[in-house]
Amino acid sequence: MLKKVLLFGLGGAAALVVGILIGHFGIQTDGPDAVPDWVAELSKDVDESLIEKFIAEVDNIQIQENLRELTKVPHMATTEGDEKTVQFMLTRWQDPKSGLDKAWREEYKVYLSFPDQSRPNKVTVVNASDAVLYTAREKEKPYLPDQEDQAVVQPYAAYGPPGNPKGKLVYANQGKTSDYEHLNKTVDLRGTIAIVRYGGAGRAAKAINAAPFGVVGVLVYTDPGDINDGKMFDTNETYPNSWYLPPSGVERGSFNTDFGDLLTPYLAAKEDTYRIPKEDITGIPPIPIQPIGFEDASALICELGGEASPTDWRGAFNCPYNMGGPGFQPASQFNNSDVLLDVYNQEELRNSSNVMGVIRGSVEPDRYVIYGNHRDSWVHGAIDPSSGTSVMLEISRVLGKMVKEGKWRPRRSIIFGSWGAEEFGLIGSAEYTEEYYSKLIQRTVAYINVDISVFANATLRASGSPSAQSVIFTATKQVKIPGSDTTSVYDNWIRYFNRTSDTYGDIPNVGYLTGAGSDYAAFMHFLGITSMDIAYTYDRSKTKARIYPAYHTAYDTFDYSSKYIDPGFTSHQTVGRTAGNVLLRLADSLLLPFNCSDYAESLEGYLKVAITNFRDELTTHSISMEPLNQAVTKFRTAANNLNSVIHGLDLSKVTPLEVRKINDQLMLLDRAFLDPLAFPNKYAFRHVIWASKSSGLATFPGLADAFERAQKTGLKEDWSQAHRHLSILTQAIAGAASTIDEVI
Amino acid sequence: MLKKVLLFGLGGAAALVVGILIGHFGIQTDGPDAVPDWVAELSKDVDESLIEKFIAEVDNIQIQENLRELTKVPHMATTEGDEKTVQFMLTRWQDPKSGLDKAWREEYKVYLSFPDQSRPNKVTVVNASDAVLYTAREKEKPYLPDQEDQAVVQPYAAYGPPGNPKGKLVYANQGKTSDYEHLNKTVDLRGTIAIVRYGGAGRAAKAINAAPFGVVGVLVYTDPGDINDGKMFDTNETYPNSWYLPPSGVERGSFNTDFGDLLTPYLAAKEDTYRIPKEDITGIPPIPIQPIGFEDASALICELGGEASPTDWRGAFNCPYNMGGPGFQPASQFNNSDVLLDVYNQEELRNSSNVMGVIRGSVEPDRYVIYGNHRDSWVHGAIDPSSGTSVMLEISRVLGKMVKEGKWRPRRSIIFGSWGAEEFGLIGSAEYTEEYYSKLIQRTVAYINVDISVFANATLRASGSPSAQSVIFTATKQVKIPGSDTTSVYDNWIRYFNRTSDTYGDIPNVGYLTGAGSDYAAFMHFLGITSMDIAYTYDRSKTKARIYPAYHTAYDTFDYSSKYIDPGFTSHQTVGRTAGNVLLRLADSLLLPFNCSDYAESLEGYLKVAITNFRDELTTHSISMEPLNQAVTKFRTAANNLNSVIHGLDLSKVTPLEVRKINDQLMLLDRAFLDPLAFPNKYAFRHVIWASKSSGLATFPGLADAFERAQKTGLKEDWSQAHRHLSILTQAIAGAASTIDEVI
Repeated sequence: MLKKVLLFGLGGAAALVVGILIGHFGIQTDGPDAVPDWVAELSKDVDESLIEKFIAEVDNIQIQENLRELTKVPHMATTEGDEKTVQFMLTRWQDPKSGLDKAWREEYKVYLSFPDQSRPNKVTVVNASDAVLYTAREKEKPYLPDQEDQAVVQPYAAYGPPGNPKGKLVYANQGKTSDYEHLNKTVDLRGTIAIVRYGGAGRAAKAINAAPFGVVGVLVYTDPGDINDGKMFDTNETYPNSWYLPPSGVERGSFNTDFGDLLTPYLAAKEDTYRIPKEDITGIPPIPIQPIGFEDASALICELGGEASPTDWRGAFNCPYNMGGPGFQPASQFNNSDVLLDVYNQEELRNSSNVMGVIRGSVEPDRYVIYGNHRDSWVHGAIDPSSGTSVMLEISRVLGKMVKEGKWRPRRSIIFGSWGAEEFGLIGSAEYTEEYYSKLIQRTVAYINVDISVFANATLRASGSPSAQSVIFTATKQVKIPGSDTTSVYDNWIRYFNRTSDTYGDIPNVGYLTGAGSDYAAFMHFLGITSMDIAYTYDRSKTKARIYPAYHTAYDTFDYSSKYIDPGFTSHQTVGRTAGNVLLRLADSLLLPFNCSDYAESLEGYLKVAITNFRDELTTHSISMEPLNQAVTKFRTAANNLNSVIHGLDLSKVTPLEVRKINDQLMLLDRAFLDPLAFPNKYAFRHVIWASKSSGLATFPGLADAFERAQKTGLKEDWSQAHRHLSILTQAIAGAASTIDEVI
Repeated sequence: MLKKVLLFGLGGAAALVVGILIGHFGIQTDGPDAVPDWVAELSKDVDESLIEKFIAEVDNIQIQENLRELTKVPHMATTEGDEKTVQFMLTRWQDPKSGLDKAWREEYKVYLSFPDQSRPNKVTVVNASDAVLYTAREKEKPYLPDQEDQAVVQPYAAYGPPGNPKGKLVYANQGKTSDYEHLNKTVDLRGTIAIVRYGGAGRAAKAINAAPFGVVGVLVYTDPGDINDGKMFDTNETYPNSWYLPPSGVERGSFNTDFGDLLTPYLAAKEDTYRIPKEDITGIPPIPIQPIGFEDASALICELGGEASPTDWRGAFNCPYNMGGPGFQPASQFNNSDVLLDVYNQEELRNSSNVMGVIRGSVEPDRYVIYGNHRDSWVHGAIDPSSGTSVMLEISRVLGKMVKEGKWRPRRSIIFGSWGAEEFGLIGSAEYTEEYYSKLIQRTVAYINVDISVFANATLRASGSPSAQSVIFTATKQVKIPGSDTTSVYDNWIRYFNRTSDTYGDIPNVGYLTGAGSDYAAFMHFLGITSMDIAYTYDRSKTKARIYPAYHTAYDTFDYSSKYIDPGFTSHQTVGRTAGNVLLRLADSLLLPFNCSDYAESLEGYLKVAITNFRDELTTHSISMEPLNQAVTKFRTAANNLNSVIHGLDLSKVTPLEVRKINDQLMLLDRAFLDPLAFPNKYAFRHVIWASKSSGLATFPGLADAFERAQKTGLKEDWSQAHRHLSILTQAIAGAASTIDEVI
């Protein structure tokens, strides 16, 4: 009976098919003249009323209580707290009334880095006779019992090597190569300790860039100018009085360049898996590095001697950010003193778990829509990542309940992933994609990542493959913002982030996933799966904070989130409704809600920038951009044709295999941009359109970086590399066009 | 009407579905209660009566006439003769009565190597005053007008560099490294010219191995002991009196190690494609090399001085194959003389064409069964490749006619490929797979290669992915051998090539496609497409010829083939019937006729050899083979389960998408073994089970080669590489197992 009830509730175009079939053949499914059950089942489209029901069911209080449970204790990867969250996820996903079809854990033995609890890392100022003149805080200042939990890990730089470097202090801005170069003009950097602020360069890069100049150790801190809109005092300005970072707050982090387990590139880190020698790891700090709070940073920086730094190097401290003599001012209490870093980090192989849960698809169980977030935090991680996990658990609860009650089963399979050890470099998700590479690359329709679900409560922010723009728009038009019955997430979003599209005019701006900031990286870049990253975020007119101030500190707690990020958890709820809506459409739509014409528009945008910036100079080196131009044109034509085919489908005649054919074209489109040999030095970056790049231009990464290098060196072989990247790109785009063209 | 007629002719299990549906719902396709047309169409299985009809239609005389036309003139790649064959293929495939749905040419600009017609390559013996004492033949001796055609290319070594090396002659057996090492013990090889026989090492390797010893030039010839069962005289023993190679016959060939266009690795060779510098090409001769006939070879070798060579170095000449003083015997007319090579080969970029033809699939047009062979020859190529092309044209004629008459259309699309420039290194097929990489890897069910269709008329010989064994068996059991109404190809085959299978007992031995001997290479190794290579071949009890004696010579003509290889062309016909039968089953079967359990048996065989040979020593290096063992077990379990699912299918209830799900699992199984980073130094070898190897052991190539290297050097990093390959292999097999396991 249920099926028939559902049939009448069908929304979407293909309901027509079912209607026609039912009208044509009658509904007596048991009579001798009836159409086989599966004819209707296979033609079923997404059920709009079910989506409305889903939206209504997503509950802010449930999310709040999920978050409360998840953040009771710190849950850094592989710790006791992490294991508690594993058990919590399993309990929820195995719940007989609201759980999934199946849930289990998968373990990897991964290479992590921790401080030594018996010998905490130290930063001191010592004079010539080794007397300690100043000691930086080892732990953040407690305001609530949260910060006093014994499981709060001391701030440290994961993968920074141990060591006890001592030297004169210099201030090196953000630790970019250009910063060290500038400093090196007037200061002899050999044997110095550099203090740098977060931002501008990757964490590891700050130390990697320093070492060639002879710097022996690095301190890193978050400048209140970058994170606190200048606020500095915990008496009244910072947490617990506001969302701003207290003076002793320290951003922890993973100081590596590549993602995935560092010892097992391209191999899942199992017990017996081959591991490269530790010495062969690249992209981690070659010298000790330690993060400190801005309270300590200001005590050091404002005592520095030497010349004042350039104005754009300066943060919010009330001093000129002298670059260092090297070392402190003669007038300073620290005159002639060194800074000493005592770093005792040690690497360990630890078992880290992903928790997996699935709902089996009814019609196309071999098509996967994957929804994921990491589970591990640095400390309590109320925002990063538990804001996302609490939302994921609410989505899975609502869907699980419908499944358990027999009210619904998705057309395609849904896989939930609660990844481990993301904070150490997206490890859980990367190992998962390595282990199940073939299965995932063959069958995955999309990956939805909701890591931090709410950075702030102003607006949605979404990034993703261009194919996914349309389904995100559909979902955001349907969901209302907190506290409004009329304003859609879409209408609110467009006020904060927008662009003018050649096709649509003004629309919200969906960003591109060009980096490896969260667990979408392995899906988008390594597997070429159409991926999305969704969150609620800031009103940029109200804060210039680089990220929410408690990020990766001991203040990222339930208390902080519930008071300053999303009181009432309605933005969490809105993200849950939106991401869940996208998930349902991807899982249930008869035709996948991907638009390949939107991909064409993105390629055209990149092409335009490339032609403007590169064509003339490439021509002087006898390298023609015309094949690239033709490939993009070919892609556009094929995309428009496929769209016409889709819009022209006679849904009363379309067969399940015709639908599958088109869906396969749409599903595999991002796969067609993979080239495993395009970027030999960029681990797991295989997508030639969205790979990371050094160039600041919004264009094709391989071409842009190779062009800029060639332009800089003028070397023939570098121009050859630019040509090579142009050919790789052209072939990938023309090849992708072939996949959306008529199939034969 | 046709559909109904066909329905009643259905064979195979799924006819049941149609029957049940028809019985259940009646056949009034226009009535209000009828089942939609496509329900039957989508469930249609291969039509056994149609296959019988196909077998009956394949005509030996048509094949003979195809061959006559194809071999009128030499048709070396990119020559006028090649263009004639392009036009011939297009005419045939565009024929309104027996052509395909569509046919067209695709051009690539590829890097080829030719002798200079105005300055033929020369091999002479010159004395100290540069007087020429002996000159080797520049052309093969004519027996028929064929050999006198101006378009017969002079024998040469394609990609051998030009140069005029002169030196004392030495005999170096087969030009293996071990041969040069042995020779070097007693002879100073610096400045010498080495003469070697074909066999034992790749063509290019004979020169590549020589250069490090100071050898400056190489001559290569075919010893009558290796090709002619010792026969040497054209007065009565060799062609035109028999199939044996005349004394002046010379095997031409491409002297490269990698396949595909050498200047554009991984990129299709279009006009503007990036090309690597010529100097960066690897795997081609570093020193001049020239092939000669055995008449000339014996004149040189039997005059050599120095010690007699080891007995296993000697061929059929009536002399001791002295190794050279270096140089000739004192008693020789050539005493103190040098051998001079004048090689004027030059490389050129030339446009080479593939000719493509397609029949669009009716139900799953986005699934491709590809059937291909190269079109270019070295000279007339009656056997290589035109024996295959004439068969392909007969298959396409019979199928095309059925399509044009509206009697049949395959379920899946069929693609015919007539590849260009195969002789220069599988170039046409490799460029095709590079250009259409994404489309082909997503959609191709199988690749069937029939290059030389008839080496000899004794028995079928087949190689392929283990998945394909069962469909080859089915086809060969149905087709009879020439001249018999009772003996099947299968029954005849098992008498010549057989093995004992754990599953089946005694069966014909299907070889593995571990090399790159023909155009299957890019499909099997680069794309991981289930591939097959099919031909008729020798009775090994009757000849020890390395290959048919006229191979790559000016004697590989219609006259030769029709007299000595397959008089009456009935073996050609048998290959056409067999390969076409396989093609039809792959194109029309409801469930793909692939058996993943047969893959398990092959993996178990390889595992057994690996454990026997490697386990103990790996254990001493703390490397466990247990994960590999478990992966193979996991694969076996999953394969058996999938087979059970297939056998247990209730065909009256199975839906088109359930069938597609299983078919996708079967189709993509070989893809799951690809690892683009496993063999960085082996161009386009990505299949971790079937990649080429140096090891003689019948086991996993990466592991075997790495193990043997480590065993030889004893170096820690080499044992690490063995471990790395073990992990790559384990992950690939476990990953492949996941793809045939339950989908969620």
